[in-house]
Amino acid sequence: MAEIQQTSVTVLGLGAMGKALASAFLKTGRPTTVWNRTPGKDTDLVAAGAVGIAAVDEAVRAGEVIVVVLLDHASVHSALDPVAEQLSGKQVINLTSTAPEEARELARWAERHGIDYLDGGIMAVPPMIGQPGASILYSGSRKVFDDNRELLESAAAADYFGDDAGLASTWDFALLSNMYAMFAGFLHGAALVRSTGAAASAFAERATAWVTAMAQLMPEYGRIIDSGDYTTEVQHLAFHKAALDAIVRASRDAGVALDVVGPIKNLIDRQVADGHGALAFERTFEELR
Amino acid sequence: MAEIQQTSVTVLGLGAMGKALASAFLKTGRPTTVWNRTPGKDTDLVAAGAVGIAAVDEAVRAGEVIVVVLLDHASVHSALDPVAEQLSGKQVINLTSTAPEEARELARWAERHGIDYLDGGIMAVPPMIGQPGASILYSGSRKVFDDNRELLESAAAADYFGDDAGLASTWDFALLSNMYAMFAGFLHGAALVRSTGAAASAFAERATAWVTAMAQLMPEYGRIIDSGDYTTEVQHLAFHKAALDAIVRASRDAGVALDVVGPIKNLIDRQVADGHGALAFERTFEELR
Ligand SMILES: NC(=O)c1ccc[n+]([C@@H]2O[C@H](COP(=O)([O-])OP(=O)(O)OC[C@H]3O[C@@H](n4cnc5c(N)ncnc54)[C@H](OP(=O)(O)O)[C@@H]3O)[C@@H](O)[C@H]2O)c1
Ligand SMILES: NC(=O)c1ccc[n+]([C@@H]2O[C@H](COP(=O)([O-])OP(=O)(O)OC[C@H]3O[C@@H](n4cnc5c(N)ncnc54)[C@H](OP(=O)(O)O)[C@@H]3O)[C@@H](O)[C@H]2O)c1
Repeated sequence: MAEIQQTSVTVLGLGAMGKALASAFLKTGRPTTVWNRTPGKDTDLVAAGAVGIAAVDEAVRAGEVIVVVLLDHASVHSALDPVAEQLSGKQVINLTSTAPEEARELARWAERHGIDYLDGGIMAVPPMIGQPGASILYSGSRKVFDDNRELLESAAAADYFGDDAGLASTWDFALLSNMYAMFAGFLHGAALVRSTGAAASAFAERATAWVTAMAQLMPEYGRIIDSGDYTTEVQHLAFHKAALDAIVRASRDAGVALDVVGPIKNLIDRQVADGHGALAFERTFEELR
Repeated sequence: MAEIQQTSVTVLGLGAMGKALASAFLKTGRPTTVWNRTPGKDTDLVAAGAVGIAAVDEAVRAGEVIVVVLLDHASVHSALDPVAEQLSGKQVINLTSTAPEEARELARWAERHGIDYLDGGIMAVPPMIGQPGASILYSGSRKVFDDNRELLESAAAADYFGDDAGLASTWDFALLSNMYAMFAGFLHGAALVRSTGAAASAFAERATAWVTAMAQLMPEYGRIIDSGDYTTEVQHLAFHKAALDAIVRASRDAGVALDVVGPIKNLIDRQVADGHGALAFERTFEELR
């Protein structure tokens, strides 16, 4: 039986994330070409078997699939616009973080140039790449996703969300929103306990266990939101209003700023004022969407 | 060897939480008296071996330790004020959710009446009581905590934070702040993906795994905050500013309200404007405390 030749890949961008990805591809023995705007970033990768190329058009010609990992939407255009012709007929997988509208714009740009475009959002930090726990969300060309499943899985668990190239970014931003809010709440809590002289690391130990336990309630929240039925037998919005009133008062007493908890109190106050006090906390979804 | 007689306990308040606590005490064979303002709430507990008493003064006399689980600070006073004399010389453990200042006020009230006072904050919902994972935070009289360690542990893991009766509540509120912010972020994320037609429960599945993974970074955040050194080799505030700018734009495009992510963006913008763009996200702690 003939050995199956792995598709060759070119990685454009050797920042922290591009290096981690190229290195994961090399580990599976895949022919890997690397390029970076500023030279000198490819030393370790070349030692590990990559081909380093200084000219972007040559780098693009060397790979059947092009993986792009640059800073932002603007840097993707400044790297790809000059080589649009060379990219024609190829598959491009863009893992640069972009907003949904930017991903859609790139998909339209790609279509105009005969490029098959897949957008991705990386849910991991560089050391997690190639390890269990890392995940990348994809949307855009289903064919690019299917053709390169093995390549993608060598970097992180790969999930496809649909044709609309903006979907991966939307899910990415949705998860990041959840994360940023959690961290903001952690910092608020740490500031509260610090007002009594306690260490943030002592708080963190407890907060990690608590938040991990509470996060397990989210699937039930999701089911309630999807049902649209916010009637509840347990803690309703009027109860949460009392809790948040007390938290806001205690935060003020402790000299902790209200940037994080104030807006949550307002969201709940508004619903109680509108007559939803007997409904569940999950109704807050309706205030946001 | 003589059998060690367990201290008798009286539970005041048979709401969802009072019932769960009394039932956990009964399971260890402890002599348990129960009282509730509105009669008829003790049927199951009496069947399980509790003594139900309708008059609060008699109920208080029956127990060596009094566990109070009422609605709020005001209801604690309305139940305890009339029986302050009978409580004199006894130990009172108040698990009603109160703000730090309210717990301190109750501790002073108790001291004036010769009552030994321990305040507690319950980090669990009723079905978790008596199960692994439930935790109650305590502060106030160390003697009450030590004397009743076994009683307390039969309900939930018990931790003592110090003499100041307001400490348990401060930690309670700090953890609740973290939780409310996480849930608010979850609802924002669910609203974002809903704008593309996806189900909140599909988002929840992913969000639970993601948030659980990210929560494990909090101990490292805590250490950085305690060190006061916010210099960083990895993602700095200017990077997070770009991310939050994009999230806010995408949320607006999707018609999702900015109550949750807007204030986080503002917190970060402010720091970048003040010249802290090269520092770590954890510096946000300094904006809050
Ligand atoms: N690091 C993470 O934890 C993480 C997590 C999830 C997603 N991401 C995303 O992954 C992408 C890369 O992140 P990173 O951590 O690797 O960033 P990084 O270390 O800052 O690297 C940025 C890369 O972009 C290149 N670049 C910037 N502007 C350019 C331009 N105009 N033309 C060509 N190249 C340009 C840089 O090249 P030079 O060397 O020439 O400056 C460098 O290779 C970003 O979109 C980021 O949001 C990162
Ligand atoms: N349930 C939870 O998930 C949870 C979690 C953590 C902490 N907690 C805290 O635990 C405490 C009790 O919660 P719960 O869920 O058991 O509440 P609940 O089911 O609403 O019960 C409230 C209890 O307070 C009594 N009460 C209210 N006002 C009173 C007054 N003026 N005088 C005497 N008794 C009065 C009620 O008696 P009647 O039957 O006569 O109305 C009832 O026994 C609250 O402080 C709550 O914040 C609860």
